[in-house]
Amino acid sequence: MHSITELASLINERIAALNINGSPRELYNPITYTLEGGGKRLRPVLMLLTCEMYGGKTEEALCPALGIEIFHNFTLLHDDIMDKAPIRRGRETVFKKWDTNVAILSGDTMFAMAYDYVRRTRADLVPEIMRVFCQTSIEVCEGQQFDMNFEVSDNTSIPDYLNMIRLKTAVALAASMQIGAAIAGAEKEEQEKIYRFGELLGMAFQLQDDLLDTYGDQLKFGKKIGGDILARKKTYMYLKALELANAEQKKALNALYMSETDNPEEKIIKAKNFFTSLGVKHHTETLINAYFTQAMMEYDRLLPDDAAKQILKEFAYSILHREM
Amino acid sequence: MHSITELASLINERIAALNINGSPRELYNPITYTLEGGGKRLRPVLMLLTCEMYGGKTEEALCPALGIEIFHNFTLLHDDIMDKAPIRRGRETVFKKWDTNVAILSGDTMFAMAYDYVRRTRADLVPEIMRVFCQTSIEVCEGQQFDMNFEVSDNTSIPDYLNMIRLKTAVALAASMQIGAAIAGAEKEEQEKIYRFGELLGMAFQLQDDLLDTYGDQLKFGKKIGGDILARKKTYMYLKALELANAEQKKALNALYMSETDNPEEKIIKAKNFFTSLGVKHHTETLINAYFTQAMMEYDRLLPDDAAKQILKEFAYSILHREM
Repeated sequence: MHSITELASLINERIAALNINGSPRELYNPITYTLEGGGKRLRPVLMLLTCEMYGGKTEEALCPALGIEIFHNFTLLHDDIMDKAPIRRGRETVFKKWDTNVAILSGDTMFAMAYDYVRRTRADLVPEIMRVFCQTSIEVCEGQQFDMNFEVSDNTSIPDYLNMIRLKTAVALAASMQIGAAIAGAEKEEQEKIYRFGELLGMAFQLQDDLLDTYGDQLKFGKKIGGDILARKKTYMYLKALELANAEQKKALNALYMSETDNPEEKIIKAKNFFTSLGVKHHTETLINAYFTQAMMEYDRLLPDDAAKQILKEFAYSILHREM
Repeated sequence: MHSITELASLINERIAALNINGSPRELYNPITYTLEGGGKRLRPVLMLLTCEMYGGKTEEALCPALGIEIFHNFTLLHDDIMDKAPIRRGRETVFKKWDTNVAILSGDTMFAMAYDYVRRTRADLVPEIMRVFCQTSIEVCEGQQFDMNFEVSDNTSIPDYLNMIRLKTAVALAASMQIGAAIAGAEKEEQEKIYRFGELLGMAFQLQDDLLDTYGDQLKFGKKIGGDILARKKTYMYLKALELANAEQKKALNALYMSETDNPEEKIIKAKNFFTSLGVKHHTETLINAYFTQAMMEYDRLLPDDAAKQILKEFAYSILHREM
């Protein structure tokens, strides 16, 4: 088995070797720019890791792993247009650096490329892998729509929010692991277990991401701290704060959160103080731990022996304690 | 064998029965709106027709045929954002009726749905069909990028233009037919012949579309006549006109074509008169006929007997003589 670092390097090497210099370059330059932008390579690493854990050949999962990473980067590229986000991973986003049309079309091309890599594995596996990947990519789109809906909705509930991040983030982690298991020839039942594990881990991962968006260290996190607050995102933290607040606090938090501001830094500090004083940080950590604990219960039921499973456990813990 | 009308009805029935009323409705309403907007159903009809021509089961090609139609509608939806086109098939475009974000995301979802339908056929065929469909969807994106490049380029050549429409339009017709043949179990060599036939027919089809954009009847055509002229598209007609014009005419045509105008109707008439006086209409018809003749040479080499091939021939002629 490879280590996490080795697997991430493998993916980065393959991405560097993609040699996307096709014509028209107006289409492919933004794709190269996006894929070279780094990132944690979480989804492909999970796919390769799961494949190896079930005794599969890493080589057979490499193209699908690249595919899932290209897919993830496609979703970021289009999300950045929709969210009007200027910065991603410390660099200008594609729609800012080029324009919206370029971002739409290079994103579409990446989506097609994603399918084109996911399909490149053993022929007998393609129908099932395609089924999983198609369902997942539809769900990710649904998640993004719910996310946009919540921006203009006044009655988003915590369950609504959790379902949104499940669709937008968790299912792709789950599918990555299921596809890895499928390529290794794992039984259907085992694939379903690893899917559930991935989904629960994905929930913990996204809530951790939300926490870091407010409480993280800007240099380590790579995104602007407080971005969710400025974008008035109805995150778990915001919704939990509203739940915990008394009538007066609720009114004040709402007014602050929805306000236009000339001083974004001040708004972020004020909202953060609100969250902190209501104990939201602690509640979020508790929920993250709850999902993580559930994930580890699924983990314990997985068939591979402890040695083969060990790296996955370490990886799961590293997600929980990450700062980026 | 079914008639063209029967096959188109079959597709329309299946589209009506898709019953896309999932959640979030903000995502699925524009998809239903788009798919119900009509259109010629050219690609799925060609797929079913080819499948039947090679003795395949229509039922096995139905989902992939729906998939290719959903794909085509996805490309129109995103193209309309990029081209800022307000009207499509006599109705408001999605980005106009809703907004750009809705159009981006419902388009992305349609792209995923397209793959999800294309993969729904006999398992042993999925790897090859996915290979063809992935390659085609990447090429269609490349075609759209070339199309956008030409809008801001001063040195688009006629071969550049023909390659662009090959990528943007012809390959999807070709792939539809190849997939239909593959589902029917046709040999690889035969699939390649039908692909070439479809590609040549697609070139004739797109050039006919360009011709109708300027010389068509608005009510029959469904799009605004003169749209290409107002969008300053470097079509074959425009490029041919420049080639045929003397220095003085060239200067005048360029000035007219690139001018801002408060009177679009007048600009369209003037440009059209330019084309007509230079004999561009005739040259375009000649080129359409050349592609059509080449297509029919491929047609003659196809294996199925004349009776089975007859409908395809009639269909090809109907494309050549269509007014919409």
